[in-house]
Amino acid sequence: MIPKRAICLLSGGLDSATCLAIARHDGFENYCLSFDYGQRHRLELEAAARVAEHLKAAEHKIIAIDLRAFGGSALTSDMDVPKQRSAAEMGNGIPVTYVPARNTIFLSFALAYAEVRNASDIFIGVNAIDYSGYPDCRPEFIEAFERMANLATKAGVEGRSRISIRAPLIRMSKSDIVRAAIALGVDLSLTHSCYDPDPQGRPCGHCDSCLLRRKGFDEAGVSDPALK
Amino acid sequence: MIPKRAICLLSGGLDSATCLAIARHDGFENYCLSFDYGQRHRLELEAAARVAEHLKAAEHKIIAIDLRAFGGSALTSDMDVPKQRSAAEMGNGIPVTYVPARNTIFLSFALAYAEVRNASDIFIGVNAIDYSGYPDCRPEFIEAFERMANLATKAGVEGRSRISIRAPLIRMSKSDIVRAAIALGVDLSLTHSCYDPDPQGRPCGHCDSCLLRRKGFDEAGVSDPALK
Repeated sequence: MIPKRAICLLSGGLDSATCLAIARHDGFENYCLSFDYGQRHRLELEAAARVAEHLKAAEHKIIAIDLRAFGGSALTSDMDVPKQRSAAEMGNGIPVTYVPARNTIFLSFALAYAEVRNASDIFIGVNAIDYSGYPDCRPEFIEAFERMANLATKAGVEGRSRISIRAPLIRMSKSDIVRAAIALGVDLSLTHSCYDPDPQGRPCGHCDSCLLRRKGFDEAGVSDPALK
Repeated sequence: MIPKRAICLLSGGLDSATCLAIARHDGFENYCLSFDYGQRHRLELEAAARVAEHLKAAEHKIIAIDLRAFGGSALTSDMDVPKQRSAAEMGNGIPVTYVPARNTIFLSFALAYAEVRNASDIFIGVNAIDYSGYPDCRPEFIEAFERMANLATKAGVEGRSRISIRAPLIRMSKSDIVRAAIALGVDLSLTHSCYDPDPQGRPCGHCDSCLLRRKGFDEAGVSDPALK
């Protein structure tokens, strides 16, 4: 039997690694997609490559896109990454680490990849519970993207198949995600989440991404193997 | 009074040039966006730069994206571009010149650019009458993209403004487009439409794009200044 194929967006962080492990557990043959988008460091892409290999992806592509051409985000410019924000601050408004239309752009490339590889499903590790307040992490965005995708593609028009956008983490807490990753055998020491690591690649411990990750491990009652 | 800002997708062809002229006529200050996506020739991008200058765009950005990484289209690989297809053939199925998810990707970048420049409108010169049968040129796709875009962005979430995706050519025939371009003073000798020009940059005259362009000029009863 030919396995169903999925495109998995893979940043190399905790969430996308867990999402890929869920896709694998669901029986998909996985085609992973990462982006070199002018983020401040290459560690994310190295982590993504390690995770793709660890979780037996059929293919891993890295697409270079120049989001710096537009500016507008602390992750793709020389703005400071904010530190030590409380949960209330993260829940209140959209931070400067937001990259304009990033998930829309990433999912659009995943849609192209899905068409070329005849994949029926696209997995994205967005999360609307313990998150930074980005608009493109919400369930209503994912649903609207799926609807659009089915009007945009050959398969949709010819009635051959439907594209499903799957966001299995969207209603999970960070500790749920840590527990799911461990249950699925993900080696979390391979993942990298920090927005602003030091020159040796160690996580800063204070950006939104580090704080959310620590909260997840703390609440799950396990230590973070990436900090050893 | 501060003029309204629009992002205009600009390929350098007849349709996108006319679309930009309509945006200008409607009073928008225009931020043009073109893509270097591994198309077979650079003439499109040179034409886009000439058209942006001619129609007084406030800015013109060219974003490099590697659609060749996926393959799957005659426009981004070494497949042959089909020639001399009839209108019936063009209306029947999706041709090999279709680039997977291309308009979805292009509009996603336009959405990022709109967020950064505070533009309220995105213009795209798609056409669902005299066209090649691409799924992402249809009104229902444009509407679904607009709906998704308003869930994807800061402005949408914060209720500050709505993004409108405008496709003013979508129900026009090619001859309507030629007539509109002439009425708006567009110098059509600057535009380039061919998928497969010769080494000197002359249009092949036989690809879908050349055939549709010729039909438009013929039906409008004017000669094509780009063929002189």
